[in-house]
Amino acid sequence: MRKTVIGVMGPGEAATRKDIDNAFELGKLIAGQDWILLSGGRNKGVMAAANQGAKSVGGLTIGIIPTADNLGTSDGVDISIITDMGSARNNINVLSSAVVIACGMGPGTASEIALALKAKKEVILLNDSPTSKAFFKEIGGQSVHSVGSPVEAIEKCQYLLKC
Amino acid sequence: MRKTVIGVMGPGEAATRKDIDNAFELGKLIAGQDWILLSGGRNKGVMAAANQGAKSVGGLTIGIIPTADNLGTSDGVDISIITDMGSARNNINVLSSAVVIACGMGPGTASEIALALKAKKEVILLNDSPTSKAFFKEIGGQSVHSVGSPVEAIEKCQYLLKC
Amino acid sequence: MRKTVIGVMGPGEAATRKDIDNAFELGKLIAGQDWILLSGGRNKGVMAAANQGAKSVGGLTIGIIPTADNLGTSDGVDISIITDMGSARNNINVLSSAVVIACGMGPGTASEIALALKAKKEVILLNDSPTSKAFFKEIGGQSVHSVGSPVEAIEKCQYLLKC
Amino acid sequence: MRKTVIGVMGPGEAATRKDIDNAFELGKLIAGQDWILLSGGRNKGVMAAANQGAKSVGGLTIGIIPTADNLGTSDGVDISIITDMGSARNNINVLSSAVVIACGMGPGTASEIALALKAKKEVILLNDSPTSKAFFKEIGGQSVHSVGSPVEAIEKCQYLLKC
Repeated sequence: MRKTVIGVMGPGEAATRKDIDNAFELGKLIAGQDWILLSGGRNKGVMAAANQGAKSVGGLTIGIIPTADNLGTSDGVDISIITDMGSARNNINVLSSAVVIACGMGPGTASEIALALKAKKEVILLNDSPTSKAFFKEIGGQSVHSVGSPVEAIEKCQYLLKC
Repeated sequence: MRKTVIGVMGPGEAATRKDIDNAFELGKLIAGQDWILLSGGRNKGVMAAANQGAKSVGGLTIGIIPTADNLGTSDGVDISIITDMGSARNNINVLSSAVVIACGMGPGTASEIALALKAKKEVILLNDSPTSKAFFKEIGGQSVHSVGSPVEAIEKCQYLLKC
Repeated sequence: MRKTVIGVMGPGEAATRKDIDNAFELGKLIAGQDWILLSGGRNKGVMAAANQGAKSVGGLTIGIIPTADNLGTSDGVDISIITDMGSARNNINVLSSAVVIACGMGPGTASEIALALKAKKEVILLNDSPTSKAFFKEIGGQSVHSVGSPVEAIEKCQYLLKC
Repeated sequence: MRKTVIGVMGPGEAATRKDIDNAFELGKLIAGQDWILLSGGRNKGVMAAANQGAKSVGGLTIGIIPTADNLGTSDGVDISIITDMGSARNNINVLSSAVVIACGMGPGTASEIALALKAKKEVILLNDSPTSKAFFKEIGGQSVHSVGSPVEAIEKCQYLLKC
């Protein structure tokens, strides 16, 4: 049976301490639901932390890798999908996710949220920028959901998957 | 000698009257500078209008087409690059442009601005949303330039191309 | 720990009866090795049969889908990676596979073999066309391995994974 | 009015002297027909030579670049489309060409021929490998045309464009 894939998107090098803590927790909670964690797969910031969180409880993880090999891939990625297409792979990240959780903010993450909204996906925002929330609400309307913690993000996911 | 390519990105179906007028003017002014106009190439909204503007003064236009054929391509596109890769082609749009002008706003346009910033490109915003300007300044800093008219956008382009 | 992904590539609508039988057997044997089966994921020919074979023994399967949704995805695909990039996804198929097994022949399959050779991957050919074997040997040299049965293909995979 | 784009595909580093001479001549003849030359755009082998040929008579040239910048782009490319998607850009090369001319042979070129046939494009082969001709005839049938010289290739193009 087709498995439920939840995407966690967020900054690499520019992730804050709080982003990383949230990402680890998100990975753990996603695995706890028996969902598969999908991320950009790099060994940095939110991607690395989410994968480590999922693996800490024995979850299954997929990384959609921007480069042509696994040199920069997180050790927490079980299944590595090598795209060699740089940021164009961000569209694959969101199309392959039942729900997209954006943990933190930055240009790459913003592109993923925007591509998700373009593809009519539901997006959950977990970050400290009121401006980002206002902006994505402006262009995404009711498909944009703002939450305050990883636990709230998972509850929102559960709700959205039932719709 | 390598030609200067300027990208004009903006909504298709959701473009406002003002977006379309601005896009036509941008196309005309870009062609007047002997720059090549690059757009998403569809026969809708900002894309269609920018191409028509450029063609109205004999410019050369390139469309980066999301579909597998030219059924939805603007008549104003001289050279049609067929990608068959949907919104993933947005990354090609920005990587191929010396400067990106975002005319209007929406999920697709936001993804192009964000992808441009991720790739360290300079982006010029021409729209009526203060929230979008605040957001992209927040994630893009000095690479984001807000202007009030097509003429100002071209002046900013000229300045940026000299840097 | 990173999982071993083996790609099975082959025709959809144009697959022969023998291609389909071989693909089912390949899927079964790949799953039996605890490898993950990767395919183009469509609900046709070699792709569908390989996935069914893997699922018949409880294997884990990944499909790299050319379209924007799962309408044409094989029921045997556990994890669906949605690319919306048509045949350009063929490059992802081969880059993500430790070894590529080409089961049957046709334009799409030929593109995957050629892209695999371009990326310095090892390719195993299982088909009835001596011309195809001669051609790929000519352009791929010792990276091209011709076998006569699914069992031989798996033995060759085991050997190549140890190199 | 939409311009006619003719693609010339062929090896980079591995091109033979004859491939390079043929590519230069093809570029020249394509420009002489007022067609636009499209190539993979790299500063090597068939790509470089075809662009130089076209520029020697003032033609217009487009390169579909596999990398994220123009460091390896041929000086003969007027308009550089930056894809940053490696060999996946081969599909764009063929989809954007009215007719594909394969000059020489190798894994990358073979992938372009196969992708062209998959997309129902007409392909002209100009090389010294009887095996390659037999193979592509086997999978492409009447869409594969073998010629003996650049002049013959252009005549075949003219014929195919009228069909």
